[in-house]
Amino acid sequence: MQNKPFHPARRVFITSAGSVVGHKEKAGPLGALFDFSGDDRFGKDSWEKAEAEMQRLALGIAMRKAELVEGDLDLLVAGDLVNQCVSSSYGLLGYRIPFLGLFGACSTCAEGLLLATLATASVCRRCAAVTSSHFCTAERQFRYPLEYGGQRTPTAQWTVTGSGAFIVSSRTCDAVRTGGEFVPEILDVMPGCIVDRGITDAANMGAAMAPAAADTILRYRDSGSLQGDALIVTGDLGAEGSAILYDLLRAEGVEIENHHTDCGLRIYRRDPADAHAGASGCGCSAVVLAAELLEKMKSGEIEEILFLGTGALMNTAAIQQGHSIPGIAHLVRIRAAKRSEIADGQND
Amino acid sequence: MQNKPFHPARRVFITSAGSVVGHKEKAGPLGALFDFSGDDRFGKDSWEKAEAEMQRLALGIAMRKAELVEGDLDLLVAGDLVNQCVSSSYGLLGYRIPFLGLFGACSTCAEGLLLATLATASVCRRCAAVTSSHFCTAERQFRYPLEYGGQRTPTAQWTVTGSGAFIVSSRTCDAVRTGGEFVPEILDVMPGCIVDRGITDAANMGAAMAPAAADTILRYRDSGSLQGDALIVTGDLGAEGSAILYDLLRAEGVEIENHHTDCGLRIYRRDPADAHAGASGCGCSAVVLAAELLEKMKSGEIEEILFLGTGALMNTAAIQQGHSIPGIAHLVRIRAAKRSEIADGQND
Repeated sequence: MQNKPFHPARRVFITSAGSVVGHKEKAGPLGALFDFSGDDRFGKDSWEKAEAEMQRLALGIAMRKAELVEGDLDLLVAGDLVNQCVSSSYGLLGYRIPFLGLFGACSTCAEGLLLATLATASVCRRCAAVTSSHFCTAERQFRYPLEYGGQRTPTAQWTVTGSGAFIVSSRTCDAVRTGGEFVPEILDVMPGCIVDRGITDAANMGAAMAPAAADTILRYRDSGSLQGDALIVTGDLGAEGSAILYDLLRAEGVEIENHHTDCGLRIYRRDPADAHAGASGCGCSAVVLAAELLEKMKSGEIEEILFLGTGALMNTAAIQQGHSIPGIAHLVRIRAAKRSEIADGQND
Repeated sequence: MQNKPFHPARRVFITSAGSVVGHKEKAGPLGALFDFSGDDRFGKDSWEKAEAEMQRLALGIAMRKAELVEGDLDLLVAGDLVNQCVSSSYGLLGYRIPFLGLFGACSTCAEGLLLATLATASVCRRCAAVTSSHFCTAERQFRYPLEYGGQRTPTAQWTVTGSGAFIVSSRTCDAVRTGGEFVPEILDVMPGCIVDRGITDAANMGAAMAPAAADTILRYRDSGSLQGDALIVTGDLGAEGSAILYDLLRAEGVEIENHHTDCGLRIYRRDPADAHAGASGCGCSAVVLAAELLEKMKSGEIEEILFLGTGALMNTAAIQQGHSIPGIAHLVRIRAAKRSEIADGQND
């Protein structure tokens, strides 16, 4: 295995992002930052259709912010948690943009950014990456009918109702056109390996995913790339998974606790009767990155992040058949590039 | 939309492939060509575990043929039809190779080759692409319990029990090392757009996917790339979908009938009481490409193919909620490159 991150051969920027959330996310501490919010239905007659609608809206918002139309995008990569990723295929079928479907569970946001980076650094001008999750579609698919009102254990997480869309571009003219003193630039990416440490409790995804996050961070460290105090942002480890991650890394001599945050701990108010160990879902890391972190990079408040999308690669049948839950974590290093120092026309 | 195929910036070869099938596929006209076959269980206690095992075996065979070990592969892309693509995550978790999950339904083989091409042409030395399907996992997930013995309509297809794995390499030393006078080289790739023409019959996937195949072929034609009489190979349109494809293309002035074949029509003997309109599933195009087409390219019997993976991006809940079935078709152009004319060390 090549234990090195992939460096794009030309500069790649996240020039725009769109975020769409449900009412619970809107009521949380980041509520004011999201581009659009609705109830759980978004005007549709099923939760599945609502989730698809969120993807449609999120991509539309990201394109509008970047002043792009369909013809400006060469590729669209998207995935979600619903069986056969239909939130993506139904949500985005109205866009006539070449489409590649992904399945990375809750790591999909990072996987999409990673592939968008590879594509825009080689064959594309611009690529959009989209993902979503919805509490109601996930709950009834992975756990219980909502009407059943099942009790939740303390390690359980709450699936975010939300969708995030990102425009990744290798055209410096796009980067120069974006607002803000800084432009988020993807410096390198590292796909994760599947890691299975034997967790079988489907209500403890944090524990299943933390070893994968540790594995990717250690591979990144071993490649000599983990330098300085860049903010490490995990996708949805929650309180339980974050604590396990600190322990696993400490045993390997890596301390991240003072420069780590988890998207799953940022989106809801800490209320033990409700979201328990935190937020989760493909939408979780996507909307936090889109609405909060990238904006803070653009204003100069955050200089660099190691964004680690974390996912649990299981389904309900596998759990019922006694399988443990494999995890994965993909890394995307993003740095705030000074807009005035990006030469327009450099790689157009 | 950039209506042009993506050309890899350096030469990319399919240096090895592995195929694993069940007993029905083994009994078909291509039976003697597959690398390995088993019963429906492959020594496991569930069909889902058997499907995962096929992926593990197929990748192992492809790696062994290419004389590669884990550390020689920089990336692994894989997907399947089972909910949350767990055949890939469980089947391949024993390989310590950075992993990206895909969902492209039955187009996954082409999607994987497409992404492997982008990766190896830019940041990787070698990338493996793997996919699978299993009649029993698909039947009980998408249709009825097997014990129910549901009647099948004439347009229904039979999901292939099989897995195909491919090693894609940009190292000319790998290409030179492979057996055969010719080496399959990927010349360009074109991701498909999602196309929905309103088909709602989940027992007629051919009709749902044919418009997507026509769309990609026409986009390829419009880019000026559809030249000569390269063999056009669709993944699993079956008899119904192939006939629709001919009609759709004829209306646009494109005749392909005399240089087209469909993997779904090659794998089983034509027996109307059984496989009906033909074979389908991610494994269908993967094992036909791996075991038959690439071998015929290596011997010089086939010079060039336009390989179109076709997929139906639906799930059962969406059908029950009244959605129609969107299709997609990704194109990979493969040509037999003369091995003696590949300069060793050219891009290592």
